[in-house]
Amino acid sequence: MTEEPRRHDDLDVARLQRRLAEFAAARDWQRYHTPKNLVAALSVEASELVEIFQWLTPEESVRVMEDQGTAHRVTDEVADVFAYLLQLCEVLGIDALAALDAKIDRNEERFPAPGAD
Amino acid sequence: MTEEPRRHDDLDVARLQRRLAEFAAARDWQRYHTPKNLVAALSVEASELVEIFQWLTPEESVRVMEDQGTAHRVTDEVADVFAYLLQLCEVLGIDALAALDAKIDRNEERFPAPGAD
Amino acid sequence: MTEEPRRHDDLDVARLQRRLAEFAAARDWQRYHTPKNLVAALSVEASELVEIFQWLTPEESVRVMEDQGTAHRVTDEVADVFAYLLQLCEVLGIDALAALDAKIDRNEERFPAPGAD
Amino acid sequence: MTEEPRRHDDLDVARLQRRLAEFAAARDWQRYHTPKNLVAALSVEASELVEIFQWLTPEESVRVMEDQGTAHRVTDEVADVFAYLLQLCEVLGIDALAALDAKIDRNEERFPAPGAD
Repeated sequence: MTEEPRRHDDLDVARLQRRLAEFAAARDWQRYHTPKNLVAALSVEASELVEIFQWLTPEESVRVMEDQGTAHRVTDEVADVFAYLLQLCEVLGIDALAALDAKIDRNEERFPAPGAD
Repeated sequence: MTEEPRRHDDLDVARLQRRLAEFAAARDWQRYHTPKNLVAALSVEASELVEIFQWLTPEESVRVMEDQGTAHRVTDEVADVFAYLLQLCEVLGIDALAALDAKIDRNEERFPAPGAD
Repeated sequence: MTEEPRRHDDLDVARLQRRLAEFAAARDWQRYHTPKNLVAALSVEASELVEIFQWLTPEESVRVMEDQGTAHRVTDEVADVFAYLLQLCEVLGIDALAALDAKIDRNEERFPAPGAD
Repeated sequence: MTEEPRRHDDLDVARLQRRLAEFAAARDWQRYHTPKNLVAALSVEASELVEIFQWLTPEESVRVMEDQGTAHRVTDEVADVFAYLLQLCEVLGIDALAALDAKIDRNEERFPAPGAD
């Protein structure tokens, strides 16, 4: 399907969003992808991340990538959360990068850093 | 703080991740940012998205961006989810873009598209 | 509305389930109470509990009821989770007490206690 | 372990809470049961309920108990949510029934029923 080798700098958000949209379209899954369903799926995937950490101490949670199996599981769930977040942005017409940039701007005003002035 | 005007193509994931890390460091918030706490915060923000949609019909959920106030609220929660996802990736050393790219590859094998061969 | 003083042993699950059903019926809210919407609302309330605890250390979380304001907030969210759980059981015809009793039975077989034989 | 046959009216909340506490104590699991961990587990189980419903239409969600396998899965997840809710109440000293009763009282004031006066 992807004919040319992928270079790392191709790995931008817009390209992944396009891959996800094509993936859903090719399987006729778009009809399931109402915003309401996508936010539910997003929250379910976020909880699958929580499940990995739920009984760990804070210290154990810091070392979670040292075990290869757990590292793979965490990375996989991160990908799932990211996938549903980008699909949600796609159907709602939200620019995730711009939204986050604007949010950090607002937070910098809301929570001034000590000694920032 | 940001001296030069920002161009849109600067808005990549790595840059936002750096902004978030600097934001947390300047406020001495990193000690709260254990992986365990960040996944909890991520799931809480995902649920705040769900809250906006919980009583809507599927059809109403599709039109959610037509109301300006709701559109702003949705965009804000999307930014919060994205922020915690990137902060989690930062502390765990996960490349979110590569993780998602690899996941789509695996899903293409796992769920072959009809007529893809 | 409740004419007689309530005795504590009236406070059983069936009675609360009835109160919740009457409450929803009197406000014509039952049409919102599809199982799909109720599980979303349940998970949102569970996340509001998580939000209270998300930045606390394990030790701080143990002392959470010592602060009167936080104690009230936790109790309030517990009530919300319980309310949606019982409303879900009502619309699906699930006996929550029997379901939990059966589950503990199964868990006792699945996870034998050390020295239980 | 339970010597006598159980009668249905024994199935009250206090008895189940005691069973859960004994179950955890016999396996030395109490050290994992900080309030922070229990709310995380509660929210994870609530999300496992959401997962069952995430792609269903509202109409399909109403008929979810017609399929025996799904009915069993839903009942099982309801039991898990209830279990963690009661264990949380146990460690925090919250009376779940009284909390919900008080909450319905407050909601009756907050959302007066049409024609209630």
